[in-house]
Amino acid sequence: MIERVLLDSEKAVELYNCVKNLPIIDYHNHLSVDDIEKDTRFLNICDLWIKPDPYKHRAMRMYGIEEKYITGDAPDKEKFVKWCSVFPYLIGNPLYIWSLMELERVFGISEIPNKDNAENLYDVLNEFLAENEITPSYLLKLFNVEIACPCISITSPTENFDKKGTIRPSLRGDDILIPNADFIKDVSEKSGVAVKNLDDYKRAICILLEKVEQIGCKFTDHALDDGFTFYEDDGKNEKRFQKAIKSNLEKEDKDHLFSYLLLFVCEEYAKRGFTTQLHIGAKRETSDLLRKKAGAQGGFAAIGNNLDVNSVINLLNALEKTEGGIGKIVLFALNPTDNAKLSILSGSFSKDGVSGLITQGPAWWWCDHKKGICDMLENNAVFGAICNFVGMTTDSRSFLSLVRHDYFRRILCSWYAEKCEKGEFLNSDELNKKIINKLCYENAKEAM
Amino acid sequence: MIERVLLDSEKAVELYNCVKNLPIIDYHNHLSVDDIEKDTRFLNICDLWIKPDPYKHRAMRMYGIEEKYITGDAPDKEKFVKWCSVFPYLIGNPLYIWSLMELERVFGISEIPNKDNAENLYDVLNEFLAENEITPSYLLKLFNVEIACPCISITSPTENFDKKGTIRPSLRGDDILIPNADFIKDVSEKSGVAVKNLDDYKRAICILLEKVEQIGCKFTDHALDDGFTFYEDDGKNEKRFQKAIKSNLEKEDKDHLFSYLLLFVCEEYAKRGFTTQLHIGAKRETSDLLRKKAGAQGGFAAIGNNLDVNSVINLLNALEKTEGGIGKIVLFALNPTDNAKLSILSGSFSKDGVSGLITQGPAWWWCDHKKGICDMLENNAVFGAICNFVGMTTDSRSFLSLVRHDYFRRILCSWYAEKCEKGEFLNSDELNKKIINKLCYENAKEAM
Amino acid sequence: MIERVLLDSEKAVELYNCVKNLPIIDYHNHLSVDDIEKDTRFLNICDLWIKPDPYKHRAMRMYGIEEKYITGDAPDKEKFVKWCSVFPYLIGNPLYIWSLMELERVFGISEIPNKDNAENLYDVLNEFLAENEITPSYLLKLFNVEIACPCISITSPTENFDKKGTIRPSLRGDDILIPNADFIKDVSEKSGVAVKNLDDYKRAICILLEKVEQIGCKFTDHALDDGFTFYEDDGKNEKRFQKAIKSNLEKEDKDHLFSYLLLFVCEEYAKRGFTTQLHIGAKRETSDLLRKKAGAQGGFAAIGNNLDVNSVINLLNALEKTEGGIGKIVLFALNPTDNAKLSILSGSFSKDGVSGLITQGPAWWWCDHKKGICDMLENNAVFGAICNFVGMTTDSRSFLSLVRHDYFRRILCSWYAEKCEKGEFLNSDELNKKIINKLCYENAKEAM
Repeated sequence: MIERVLLDSEKAVELYNCVKNLPIIDYHNHLSVDDIEKDTRFLNICDLWIKPDPYKHRAMRMYGIEEKYITGDAPDKEKFVKWCSVFPYLIGNPLYIWSLMELERVFGISEIPNKDNAENLYDVLNEFLAENEITPSYLLKLFNVEIACPCISITSPTENFDKKGTIRPSLRGDDILIPNADFIKDVSEKSGVAVKNLDDYKRAICILLEKVEQIGCKFTDHALDDGFTFYEDDGKNEKRFQKAIKSNLEKEDKDHLFSYLLLFVCEEYAKRGFTTQLHIGAKRETSDLLRKKAGAQGGFAAIGNNLDVNSVINLLNALEKTEGGIGKIVLFALNPTDNAKLSILSGSFSKDGVSGLITQGPAWWWCDHKKGICDMLENNAVFGAICNFVGMTTDSRSFLSLVRHDYFRRILCSWYAEKCEKGEFLNSDELNKKIINKLCYENAKEAM
Repeated sequence: MIERVLLDSEKAVELYNCVKNLPIIDYHNHLSVDDIEKDTRFLNICDLWIKPDPYKHRAMRMYGIEEKYITGDAPDKEKFVKWCSVFPYLIGNPLYIWSLMELERVFGISEIPNKDNAENLYDVLNEFLAENEITPSYLLKLFNVEIACPCISITSPTENFDKKGTIRPSLRGDDILIPNADFIKDVSEKSGVAVKNLDDYKRAICILLEKVEQIGCKFTDHALDDGFTFYEDDGKNEKRFQKAIKSNLEKEDKDHLFSYLLLFVCEEYAKRGFTTQLHIGAKRETSDLLRKKAGAQGGFAAIGNNLDVNSVINLLNALEKTEGGIGKIVLFALNPTDNAKLSILSGSFSKDGVSGLITQGPAWWWCDHKKGICDMLENNAVFGAICNFVGMTTDSRSFLSLVRHDYFRRILCSWYAEKCEKGEFLNSDELNKKIINKLCYENAKEAM
Repeated sequence: MIERVLLDSEKAVELYNCVKNLPIIDYHNHLSVDDIEKDTRFLNICDLWIKPDPYKHRAMRMYGIEEKYITGDAPDKEKFVKWCSVFPYLIGNPLYIWSLMELERVFGISEIPNKDNAENLYDVLNEFLAENEITPSYLLKLFNVEIACPCISITSPTENFDKKGTIRPSLRGDDILIPNADFIKDVSEKSGVAVKNLDDYKRAICILLEKVEQIGCKFTDHALDDGFTFYEDDGKNEKRFQKAIKSNLEKEDKDHLFSYLLLFVCEEYAKRGFTTQLHIGAKRETSDLLRKKAGAQGGFAAIGNNLDVNSVINLLNALEKTEGGIGKIVLFALNPTDNAKLSILSGSFSKDGVSGLITQGPAWWWCDHKKGICDMLENNAVFGAICNFVGMTTDSRSFLSLVRHDYFRRILCSWYAEKCEKGEFLNSDELNKKIINKLCYENAKEAM
């Protein structure tokens, strides 16, 4: 059913045939390191397909499904039936195609879930799980994953990773920038540095960065949520840090210290050749009621206001002047109106010999759909340099989401094919294939 | 001439054939209740076609037509000729297709007005009006209107409405939120409550809401103009209200009281099962000269800056915590760059059993054209849940604008058909038709 | 190779055939008046093709080319080879098509530059320059330029211009609005008015405006960079001006004086029938390092935040109330999210008898590509009045950029043709051709 999905022309199919079997480099995601290590077997379709996917929870809420069937204590079968009952109405939402791809790719099922086939589907899928050993390692192989990088904190255990292996860490650095007493204590213990001041803290962070580097870390990321402002160092950050050791900071102090430490870690990342992802524009506080019911990652986040682009520019400009200099930065926009502002920055900073110093990353989170991907590609092309695109990553908690690489490749090939057919991309077929290969695989591989 | 207009494919025609004869629910407009009640006969093409349509006035101004031929005292025939003289240059503006549809649907005329045929057209159209009894009731029947909801104020007379009839009220609540001495006096009289303080006022408003509910009101609306900020209650609103009884408030006090009362009325609307429309982002103050010449509704309003989405989120979050809870909210964007931010909120708030608690409404005002409608549909689909879309409404002062439902249906069918043909919407034909029906009619009907 | 480029349909070709040979009115650019006057012969392909084009420098930086091969002291041939080596990877960036059009139109070469053919191309192109007298006058003729308007300052020499000639001035008024001691002195000398206060200054500016008017100036422009705010006169501008005569102003004083003088000059432009271009939203400060290496016009500028539309509205509203009134204003958006807000203003201000008082101008700078041009056309059409579009201008420093008029005409014709084929533009062929002619040539010609 989905063989030709999203492939809009013969040229698209031709290009797609060159990349569909390429391995996957998923350089930033939220897969469970624990499940990977234990190679946990999935025996229940809800645990595999619905529970770890806040996008699906969100979709059910939009159609009025009661929370007990989403994150509550209703029996799995009932939850599954509810999910299927809304499914046909998800047309246009990326979940619709993703889910069909997941069913077909993993289970060989070509049906559109709905209220009528739900109970039967539930049994069929669970039988499949009973008869087949579906585990993380099975899925990683099925999707042809060469490297997957689940997020870890700088204080996470490092023994599960192998520098040359399939599973390598992606460093989520958010906690470094908002240090509190517990975190500082943890950093002290893990680094062996008794952190008493900002210099100690920076030294300790460097030691821990060394460790994550040793286990193969190449990508880091920071969330610059709605309202992000970059502050120059005003000389008061030691004082703020002293306060943070003992108690909570006021918002303004927090924001200043955040900027100071962001600049510091970005310089350190640059020294180590890490690629830094900046995830810009999430608005995580929406419904307090939903937060209480469904937890912080419940799928109810929103899109924040437009970015103040001066803050990103000031950060990059300050970074260029540090001793360590500036490293590769990938900018992710959650608000589509930031696309142009971010893509254009590709040409506003440079470093001799570095292709793609600043680039816009793949369509992120709520923007990961055909419209979002095409917008991102188009903006990258017209305002930046499309061939520097670092490649798709899922940023997902679900192993099944790896199918989104296929989703991305189809959309990319259709987009690219249309430009070829309209005579706007005039390169040779050979070069076109080389470029498509870079965008789907080589560029990410090179960054590892 | 316009039979196939905006229908881009055979599939689009097929879908359109399923909905073109559906009745119209126009749940929010500015039709004259007085003209409807008296069933005023239109005997002059200017009175019917040009005078009540500020969009046309605006178009003439853009092409340099002197104001005396627009809102001034030039003879009707000359005004008509001026309008026709600019007509062919309106290509691309929605007025171009709308006007051709109006001429063909109401008068059976398939000509493009221009300076050469203007005088003849004037005579032909006026003859038509002389020979046919063209009245509101005729037009409502011609356009197959099942329900039309002109706006009333909460203090408007209620006797013209019939809970089960074709004409039902839509409550425009703006004046409730900026109470002044006259309005408070009016509220006192109409409600029978001697309003001395905020509690009295709220009680009085509830009594009046009861009345509009009894005459069939199901939709309300509030304008959140450019610069809207939501303020939490700071405990000073009684004091502000006391001041408002006697004199005008300063902007800051006005804004605080506005927020306080907005939260209050939204809770009351929720209790009564009303759907609340929030019309976001108008910038009504532009040219003072035009305001003086053409009046406040002269068609010179502009598009405001991007919405501060935190204000809408804070309002919804506060509403969720009220005793009455949150009811259905429809968000309208005048600034297209707010589309993504508003559509995504569909998944940020929820209520057990309510499908489409928060949705983005139809393309509004200056955005009511093919581009605006497609943008809105696309944003609703990818960020929200398209099947919850509440349906088209004209928001217009002109009876002829009812033709815009046909305009909308054509664009919707072409948009939907393209998704089907590209294999992105994979539902059965039967379900597709059911969904298109919901979007054109059923969803609005259910909200009545 | 590029004969059919960007012409998407037979209808597009048909329309294009009507406009491809029309003369060019390039009403605002940065061509070297000195080179034009001396009719400097180009003998080196780098001097003609690469050196004067910061877009190309920017593109090389994005692909990591070392600065010495861009603005540094590497030999020309090596620079040329570097440029060719990145060329095939510029697909999607407007430079790709522009450069191919430049090569084919000027040199008759239909090859895609790349690292393999670079050295040969270098020789071939330089031989061409040795054998043919390629000069400004040759290129202006080749591109069929009827009028080109390089920018001058109000204090620039005026003797190179001929009111009826091909080369007429476009006034860049930026320096008038941020007067400093040197500039004021210059204004005093050139005007013969001993400028001691703001009134003197305004008088002197009027005298100089008279001079530029006499040499055929019809277009002026002002940059309203990122963060532009319009301040009403607070009565302190004389004081600020006195300070400016002696020393530098603080940012706030600068901004107030800027607003005051902007209003003043716009009124004066209106009196003289000038068309005023407002270039909105550039963010010129990005990398300090690049500024140092490559100079202020080094191609590293970015796109600023969304415009505060109230500032533009307040300016226009204030202008309408001046004695001199409001003249034609063309609004240019660098941030695509400003398109709707700016286009809609076409209908928010008017002047009896003036068609196109306020319009949105051609896609500007980083937005001058197919996507940007189509966005601009679409926004102009749906929110404004497309037939008032004032026409393309290059705003470029390079003579070869004149080829962008052809680029624009092709995109316009494809856009227009699609509307015709979809039955949205229903005018006669004759009228369509007349309109296309206006958009490509007549409207700009009328403004001269």
